[in-house]
Amino acid sequence: MASLSIRVDFDGAGRMGPGKIALLEAVAEHGSISAAGKAMGMSYRRAWELVAELNATFGRPLVAPTIGGRHGGGSVLTPFGAELIEHYRAIEAKAEEAAERHLRALEASLAKAG
Amino acid sequence: MASLSIRVDFDGAGRMGPGKIALLEAVAEHGSISAAGKAMGMSYRRAWELVAELNATFGRPLVAPTIGGRHGGGSVLTPFGAELIEHYRAIEAKAEEAAERHLRALEASLAKAG
Repeated sequence: MASLSIRVDFDGAGRMGPGKIALLEAVAEHGSISAAGKAMGMSYRRAWELVAELNATFGRPLVAPTIGGRHGGGSVLTPFGAELIEHYRAIEAKAEEAAERHLRALEASLAKAG
Repeated sequence: MASLSIRVDFDGAGRMGPGKIALLEAVAEHGSISAAGKAMGMSYRRAWELVAELNATFGRPLVAPTIGGRHGGGSVLTPFGAELIEHYRAIEAKAEEAAERHLRALEASLAKAG
């Protein structure tokens, strides 16, 4: 099946694509940036850099530290971080739906294996 | 202005994004793969590789040699090559239109310079 991979370019103010969004989702799932990076086969440093890039693009934190409790020392998404994921996944879904006819035409044109 | 950059993934059979499409458009404009690559700051070898990847994905030529005439020795798009560009540009336009509300919301959330 043909699928779209989408990057949003903010005209000099940064960009946001499947990698950064998957990282944010992994932070929500794993409860820390280091665990999220690890789950994605990414160094701690690289995971922090990607989060820092998003923070700079939007001028506010996407991820916040948790203090105390079972997940003390970890990280959670801020409400804005969660909102960002929702917008991105909605863009993806709406784009695939709008492009469906063309994706099917391209698929029908693929080289047939065997 | 926020804009989308779209790649189409054919599930193991290859991929097609803004670079390959721009190269095909440059072949149509400049009349040869080498001139197209040059216009895009790409080596002749790299330009050929990208065209060959697309040919392999679709099992048919996207670009055909011209023989004789004013453009002898050059290349033109095949009708299928032209069709591919149309599908891709339509996917882009429809995706941006479908995602407009979300792109505006993201734009409104960008860090304000100054």
